[in-house]
Amino acid sequence: MIDESILRSLVMPNDRKIVLLVADGLGGLPRDLDGRTELEAAAKPTLDKLAAHSACGLSVPAGPGITPGSGPAHLALFGYDPFRYQIGRGVMEALGIGLEVGTHDVAVRANFATMDRDGVVTDRRAGRITTERCAGLCAKLQREVPPLDGVEAFVMHASEHRFVVVFRGPGLDEHLADTDPQRDGARAVDPQPLFEEAERTAAVVRSFVAKANRVLAGEGPANTVLLRGFSALPHLPTFKDRYGLKAAAIAAYPMYRGLAQCVGMAVLPTGPSLEEQFETLRQHYKDFDFFYVHVKKTDTRGEDGNFNAKVQVINELDAALPALLKLEPDVLAVTGDHSTPALMKGHSWHPNPFLLHARTAQPGWTEEFTERSCALGTLGRFPATDAMPLLLAHAGKLAKFGA
Amino acid sequence: MIDESILRSLVMPNDRKIVLLVADGLGGLPRDLDGRTELEAAAKPTLDKLAAHSACGLSVPAGPGITPGSGPAHLALFGYDPFRYQIGRGVMEALGIGLEVGTHDVAVRANFATMDRDGVVTDRRAGRITTERCAGLCAKLQREVPPLDGVEAFVMHASEHRFVVVFRGPGLDEHLADTDPQRDGARAVDPQPLFEEAERTAAVVRSFVAKANRVLAGEGPANTVLLRGFSALPHLPTFKDRYGLKAAAIAAYPMYRGLAQCVGMAVLPTGPSLEEQFETLRQHYKDFDFFYVHVKKTDTRGEDGNFNAKVQVINELDAALPALLKLEPDVLAVTGDHSTPALMKGHSWHPNPFLLHARTAQPGWTEEFTERSCALGTLGRFPATDAMPLLLAHAGKLAKFGA
Repeated sequence: MIDESILRSLVMPNDRKIVLLVADGLGGLPRDLDGRTELEAAAKPTLDKLAAHSACGLSVPAGPGITPGSGPAHLALFGYDPFRYQIGRGVMEALGIGLEVGTHDVAVRANFATMDRDGVVTDRRAGRITTERCAGLCAKLQREVPPLDGVEAFVMHASEHRFVVVFRGPGLDEHLADTDPQRDGARAVDPQPLFEEAERTAAVVRSFVAKANRVLAGEGPANTVLLRGFSALPHLPTFKDRYGLKAAAIAAYPMYRGLAQCVGMAVLPTGPSLEEQFETLRQHYKDFDFFYVHVKKTDTRGEDGNFNAKVQVINELDAALPALLKLEPDVLAVTGDHSTPALMKGHSWHPNPFLLHARTAQPGWTEEFTERSCALGTLGRFPATDAMPLLLAHAGKLAKFGA
Repeated sequence: MIDESILRSLVMPNDRKIVLLVADGLGGLPRDLDGRTELEAAAKPTLDKLAAHSACGLSVPAGPGITPGSGPAHLALFGYDPFRYQIGRGVMEALGIGLEVGTHDVAVRANFATMDRDGVVTDRRAGRITTERCAGLCAKLQREVPPLDGVEAFVMHASEHRFVVVFRGPGLDEHLADTDPQRDGARAVDPQPLFEEAERTAAVVRSFVAKANRVLAGEGPANTVLLRGFSALPHLPTFKDRYGLKAAAIAAYPMYRGLAQCVGMAVLPTGPSLEEQFETLRQHYKDFDFFYVHVKKTDTRGEDGNFNAKVQVINELDAALPALLKLEPDVLAVTGDHSTPALMKGHSWHPNPFLLHARTAQPGWTEEFTERSCALGTLGRFPATDAMPLLLAHAGKLAKFGA
């Protein structure tokens, strides 16, 4: 990828509008039935027409054969080397369940677990208690564990025995070892700082665990907590710093709003439907020059392994798209962050179809918005980290390099 | 290429089978007659059908315009940066003629040469003596030069005046300057250590040269030896370390067996024909999860400049292939290590057709297994070092990166 400081030196802000529409997990694979991918099976006249008049290609999310999580896949699309800028597990989990993570907070993934009277962990998952039970216990911890030396602990359930804690207060540092012993029959590990800077945080966490144990005494299998993946928000250069962009995110799911915040985007309140998201775009169109719009359900249906439902989401996206096109953005890109083929019921490493519509875009042989047809486009196969420089260039926001 | 330590951290072994079939020097160029390449002129219905149902592309062996030797070309395909991991000339030559090179051995290329009575080299090639004569002299040296301070010297002829010496014994170090003065009319250079660690080795080599001179006195033009390219096996991470793979090589030629050994593959005994190689594969199919199968003759016929003979080798490969396909490997790749166009009578930098067959492979527009048709595949044009991460991913052996 292009050197960050060189790119930054070429940035030349103007008021042209860029819209990056990310259909999560968009890329797919042929199903056995008729050899067509989800995109090939979908009815999407608007996207197809757009693709035929766009520069198209295939974007590789993280590297050959590398299946990225949502964090690295989005960072790459936002132009950040996903191997250099890694977002910790605790932070990703917190963002995923909608817990806010501030710049100085420390987030950690947690399990309810069972320990015997000698303090030995007998079940790291507390018998996989239900999500409802987990939610009840989290509420109890939130209510009954007092602030710890000026630090507040925010506790939120995830699924089954899993939950997340975000510590908020002055002087926190994320460099702590896991307390989870990773096997039954061992004691939980006392919170240990990895560096001197984290000593105070270790004391806070130790006090949290002790108090949690007191609150949970008598709660049956879920009588202790195990913590792993202490992490803080990574220090990412913002879209403003890096690209000179006033950027906004329109995303219905917490994790994507959190990711956008990590790169300094304003996060606009919006509704869960495509129509509401595009209406939010319309309302704020004058206020920003870059919009990241996130469509979640392509990924969800892919993860479900439901080929037809994923096709249906693409059909709906296509039907809703005219509301966005009516704004006539100077540069519009439509792509995915990674593939989620229904065939695989999960993320994959396959490249995503990528469409870039702009006055300066060079159309190729692409006739429809599919993986195979985008392979015939003028953008070729390129790393997702190249997308942002391309969008900036097509918006006239990059100066000439050299004389 | 993807960072080695990141890739290693994602490896997730399972029992799925990967077969990498390398037809050496596979890629070709159009002949004048009808503008068809060797692959285009071949009758290969099985490969063509396979390609149409595979992810295809073009793999670039070492870099734009860079013609690799067999060593770097194979290392790249095995996922090792061929510029970082270089295998010395002496070692490659030894492997090429079937001389075993152990982990602590030092190998060197040698010439029989002529020197006058003042010790001046008058012909660095001893009048290009025949290979038979060379073999006889090598046998004589092997017989008559005694062990040198506990170090054995293994002497084996190559072609004409060329031969190889492998020194085996404790405390050897390959950092020695060439003794070959590189021009007639100069004296042979006394063996010199490049670093202190190689002082003992220099003494051993000095003693070898003195004894060889004594043995060769009176042997006419071939009365001395010149040595160049002292080298030891490179310290390569193994396939097990790097990819978690239990890997085996099925190759009839010594050099390729040696290369496979360098990356820690088990080398299976096999016969020279394709049928025997595929039968070896069948017999050991349960014992390994990665197989490298090497077909030599595509390269040999290309080096000969014999277009029709190379076509014939491809025809034979296609006819033998069903025996391999019957094993139904989870992931099968067919490609070359480098191109050897008959037109050029030698290795070239041109990319190789690459076919990847797996349930998760995305077919593109490729209709037959040729250079031109693979250019229309979904893998695009990619560095050969990307092949291994792709094979691992398609075999489900790589975990997701990040959350």
